[in-house]
Amino acid sequence: MSLELRKRLFAELDSQVLIDPHTHINPHAPAAATLADILGYHYFTELAHSAGMPKAQIEQPGLEPRAKVARLMTNLAPLENTIQYSWFVEIAQRLYGFEDERVTADNWPPLFDAARQRASQPDWADQVLRESRLEAVFLTNDFDDPLEGWDTKVYIPCLRTDDLVFHLADPKVRERLANATGRSTGDIGSLRAAIGMLFDHFVAHGARACAISLPPDFEPTRITEGRATTAWSHVCARGADADAADTRAVAHFVFWTLTEYCVEYHLPFDLMIGVNRAVYEQGVFQGQDLYDSRVSLIQYRELFNTFPQVTFPVSVLASVTNQELTSYAWIFPNVVTSGHWWYSNTPAYIEHDLAARLEAIPSTKQIGYYSDMYKLEFGVPKFAMYKRVLAKVLAERFVLDRGWSEQRAIQLGMTVLRENVERVFAVREA
Amino acid sequence: MSLELRKRLFAELDSQVLIDPHTHINPHAPAAATLADILGYHYFTELAHSAGMPKAQIEQPGLEPRAKVARLMTNLAPLENTIQYSWFVEIAQRLYGFEDERVTADNWPPLFDAARQRASQPDWADQVLRESRLEAVFLTNDFDDPLEGWDTKVYIPCLRTDDLVFHLADPKVRERLANATGRSTGDIGSLRAAIGMLFDHFVAHGARACAISLPPDFEPTRITEGRATTAWSHVCARGADADAADTRAVAHFVFWTLTEYCVEYHLPFDLMIGVNRAVYEQGVFQGQDLYDSRVSLIQYRELFNTFPQVTFPVSVLASVTNQELTSYAWIFPNVVTSGHWWYSNTPAYIEHDLAARLEAIPSTKQIGYYSDMYKLEFGVPKFAMYKRVLAKVLAERFVLDRGWSEQRAIQLGMTVLRENVERVFAVREA
Amino acid sequence: MSLELRKRLFAELDSQVLIDPHTHINPHAPAAATLADILGYHYFTELAHSAGMPKAQIEQPGLEPRAKVARLMTNLAPLENTIQYSWFVEIAQRLYGFEDERVTADNWPPLFDAARQRASQPDWADQVLRESRLEAVFLTNDFDDPLEGWDTKVYIPCLRTDDLVFHLADPKVRERLANATGRSTGDIGSLRAAIGMLFDHFVAHGARACAISLPPDFEPTRITEGRATTAWSHVCARGADADAADTRAVAHFVFWTLTEYCVEYHLPFDLMIGVNRAVYEQGVFQGQDLYDSRVSLIQYRELFNTFPQVTFPVSVLASVTNQELTSYAWIFPNVVTSGHWWYSNTPAYIEHDLAARLEAIPSTKQIGYYSDMYKLEFGVPKFAMYKRVLAKVLAERFVLDRGWSEQRAIQLGMTVLRENVERVFAVREA
Repeated sequence: MSLELRKRLFAELDSQVLIDPHTHINPHAPAAATLADILGYHYFTELAHSAGMPKAQIEQPGLEPRAKVARLMTNLAPLENTIQYSWFVEIAQRLYGFEDERVTADNWPPLFDAARQRASQPDWADQVLRESRLEAVFLTNDFDDPLEGWDTKVYIPCLRTDDLVFHLADPKVRERLANATGRSTGDIGSLRAAIGMLFDHFVAHGARACAISLPPDFEPTRITEGRATTAWSHVCARGADADAADTRAVAHFVFWTLTEYCVEYHLPFDLMIGVNRAVYEQGVFQGQDLYDSRVSLIQYRELFNTFPQVTFPVSVLASVTNQELTSYAWIFPNVVTSGHWWYSNTPAYIEHDLAARLEAIPSTKQIGYYSDMYKLEFGVPKFAMYKRVLAKVLAERFVLDRGWSEQRAIQLGMTVLRENVERVFAVREA
Repeated sequence: MSLELRKRLFAELDSQVLIDPHTHINPHAPAAATLADILGYHYFTELAHSAGMPKAQIEQPGLEPRAKVARLMTNLAPLENTIQYSWFVEIAQRLYGFEDERVTADNWPPLFDAARQRASQPDWADQVLRESRLEAVFLTNDFDDPLEGWDTKVYIPCLRTDDLVFHLADPKVRERLANATGRSTGDIGSLRAAIGMLFDHFVAHGARACAISLPPDFEPTRITEGRATTAWSHVCARGADADAADTRAVAHFVFWTLTEYCVEYHLPFDLMIGVNRAVYEQGVFQGQDLYDSRVSLIQYRELFNTFPQVTFPVSVLASVTNQELTSYAWIFPNVVTSGHWWYSNTPAYIEHDLAARLEAIPSTKQIGYYSDMYKLEFGVPKFAMYKRVLAKVLAERFVLDRGWSEQRAIQLGMTVLRENVERVFAVREA
Repeated sequence: MSLELRKRLFAELDSQVLIDPHTHINPHAPAAATLADILGYHYFTELAHSAGMPKAQIEQPGLEPRAKVARLMTNLAPLENTIQYSWFVEIAQRLYGFEDERVTADNWPPLFDAARQRASQPDWADQVLRESRLEAVFLTNDFDDPLEGWDTKVYIPCLRTDDLVFHLADPKVRERLANATGRSTGDIGSLRAAIGMLFDHFVAHGARACAISLPPDFEPTRITEGRATTAWSHVCARGADADAADTRAVAHFVFWTLTEYCVEYHLPFDLMIGVNRAVYEQGVFQGQDLYDSRVSLIQYRELFNTFPQVTFPVSVLASVTNQELTSYAWIFPNVVTSGHWWYSNTPAYIEHDLAARLEAIPSTKQIGYYSDMYKLEFGVPKFAMYKRVLAKVLAERFVLDRGWSEQRAIQLGMTVLRENVERVFAVREA
């Protein structure tokens, strides 16, 4: 009975066209060219590596797509239980006509061929978007991205700022900034102006958000102009050898400056809180990051208080931080919950975290989901996974536990799936 | 099947008369006079504010009740998903004869009138208590409350001690203490004696508990008489300008002294652990507090070891602390779990936390629930919410998973709902 | 329907013979001689004490088994809700022919007699193993255990190293080490050599793992030979009066050395992370330990990176650390999840933690369960509890939510229950 109810709710939720508010799609090559682009996603390479395949085999330079898939197929069996593997099978089934339950040594070659054949169709990316029920996806653009050569109504730019906040000590990053803005950044005033030019550029090209990922120990604070001036001169002079205190002061200055520009340019600032980079130094590409779950949103107290005009869609990496996120979104008008990020993007954690949000935060302040995908094909299984859990929570906790009508539950689902994305990021106005 | 079982268990649990061991009821005006007293509860004002209503509109001075309700009604739609909103509707339905599913721009005026009419009945508070199946509620009394003018068997006094522990640097608080006790508190001995007089006064008026809320970084410890003497003289001399170390030493001294009096007066000491006050400085009244979930009961190790004679009913603000609470109550004879506090008082967290407690802590050491309410009307939906979750956990995890009889499950429910409150707080002896 | 499905899965899982990869069984007396050995387990004594029975009554010296049981029976009623109590009843029912639902003042004497009668049978331990569907159990051996006098294929040695890492400042421990190895340990080189001799001895006697429990603040790191030399000389000279920094340096040196030997001897190193010893100083025997859940696996970053050749089966004490464990096992090839330890070994936490693991970690990297038992009888109810939860998670989250066949779900269950234990600990090769 509950299963049937869940299916009905899922069918309704699944029939609606959505916008994906955070991806890493390359708009010049949004879809996978071969199955190697699917299995090359770090979720598979890191799990295959974790299950025993040497990194050197996975990342051997110059490997042809077919050979790469053949190799990964030899160590996928230990992953068949994972939800990540289910994404692979769901892509195969819904996009490539695959009909089996598992991809094996026997049936992968025809799957590989089918995928290559379909992916070669000129409108393949659009077909995938249609199958995903996505009409637009947000990108993650480097600050010096020219933002040209694609339809920014479908592939919506987003200013990613990790490099600006954390890597300006690297002369190459400063050079990129100088090249992108055509001006030097030798003093704090010109640095601030250069950042403003990035906002000009991005907003002119339809950007709808500023975004950053942050380590667990980051605690944004306003620093004085004098301190920023000194720190910046030290960082420019010494680069990677600068004192950690100076590098941190520059990070704080740039972060605060970005937020000030978010006020001026009316952009939400996506905060993705909690990742430690390169914890597993010998891991595969993009499979090295982990975290310390001892993080608190109290670290963002000054930020949230200082910028009531900026909407902060907040993602947290660890499920144990979800209650704080729920409570802060319940209290702070400018804090919005955003999706289920990375290590929390699995059904058990989504279910737990989503249930807590849906019952305590105004419905208008919850961005239900984003895919975080690198290739469009993953929009299909990732959104489907989320919508299944959403249907489960709505069925069990609203229709059954609280006596809601199905229609009312579906409406709540649509608010967090679609309406909030449009309103928070002002997509229709863009 | 499971739903029917849950309903049967709920019906049995709901038929019993209970005592609410923690509220903020004003015994001189226990019930709501109008719907504005209901919607004025911080759970609604803070959520309406969080959803976009300016604080100045919500808290405009001199607003008439009807006008206030009319205004709040304009921004309740975003809250309709929340469990807090369901409390409002359940109050309207069960206490004011409301028959719809949502309160809207159209149907609120007759609801307002019905509420005012019923609330004007002279025995309205008693009617509400009956509908809540509550026969008595604990209060939260300032230390200088005269405790007179009401039936202390129904509205049971409780000595709230936050001001004594954390605000004695404020001359106004010291003055209140002097006025309440009729003696100066210029040295540490007289401060201790004054606190003792408060216990005399409270116990003489039927108080059954001492209580305090504590920030996440509080770590009670015994300090020497010499250190306390110095710190107290500095705090008295400098007030708010005293060193933080002195203020903290005084807090530790007073907290320890309160606990010593709990031994002498045989009072349980309710510890509500984990709140940071005024995190959102521009929030509405009572809608500014949040927390840092990085707290551990190891901070209370010395306290629990030093005072085996004192029962500590402990509430934790964050669900991530619930397992520690469960484990400490499992091991320490003097630690008792107490209710589901504030940001953890929503069904998903109650269910998770309650399941863990019921299966690992002796049944006699669990205070099931308190309402924390400011107006009696909230006893109806809050206790009902808890009893629904309790029925769910008993049905699924005891009757179905463990094969218990329904009768046995109901008995366990009654132990945590009622019997423990009576025994832990010695209510019948009072 | 779901209940029937769970029962079918449980029946299949329960029909298989397993190996228990962590217990505290004494191989010279593996089974309980009387019911006092069952009720003397700290899970019962600490709960009886927590529920109000004085420690002096529980631990009165010289108490006869029958008198001890009679005494404990007087305060078991408050525990009847706990899962721990259900272990007692399940032992009584499945091993001693008990037919009631609760053990009471009336029915315990015949139960006592039945238990004594059965336990007196010469093959009782083997009968218990058969009823548990266990063919072998790992032990927890002191480093100076002679490891002789039992069948090490059934009672598999495991080198427990807490004393070596944390208690070498105690001259008695150093003396035990000298006696076990026949050599002095006056300098760091001879200390390292002595530890190597322990590995020789243990591996020669069939040991399949090295193991340790660690406090929440432990952060393993490599220290220099020079620092180790100095610290060791200070610790040897001053014992318990040595500086904490020296004691800690020795702990780090020994821990690192143990891990190096795990490389050399191809032993997995079981890490049981998070316990604070003797928090409740007046608690009953083995009922004094608690924890601080503010621990992170980031503390083990250097260790996991430095020793890719060592498999670390990791247990965490608090459920809030489970997501980190899940993520670290997902990324690090040498990190394996291990069981559900102590305060997390109750159904609600197992269910939550297990669901997260099964859906995100390669199936081959999960040690499903160990009993941690002191007497073989507890293998029956503890494994049954785990298998019931495992069947529930497989039924609800794999068969129902993900459309898996029952056979496929059972196969996943068997991988984590049995196959991984064999492979990770190389049991068949031993």
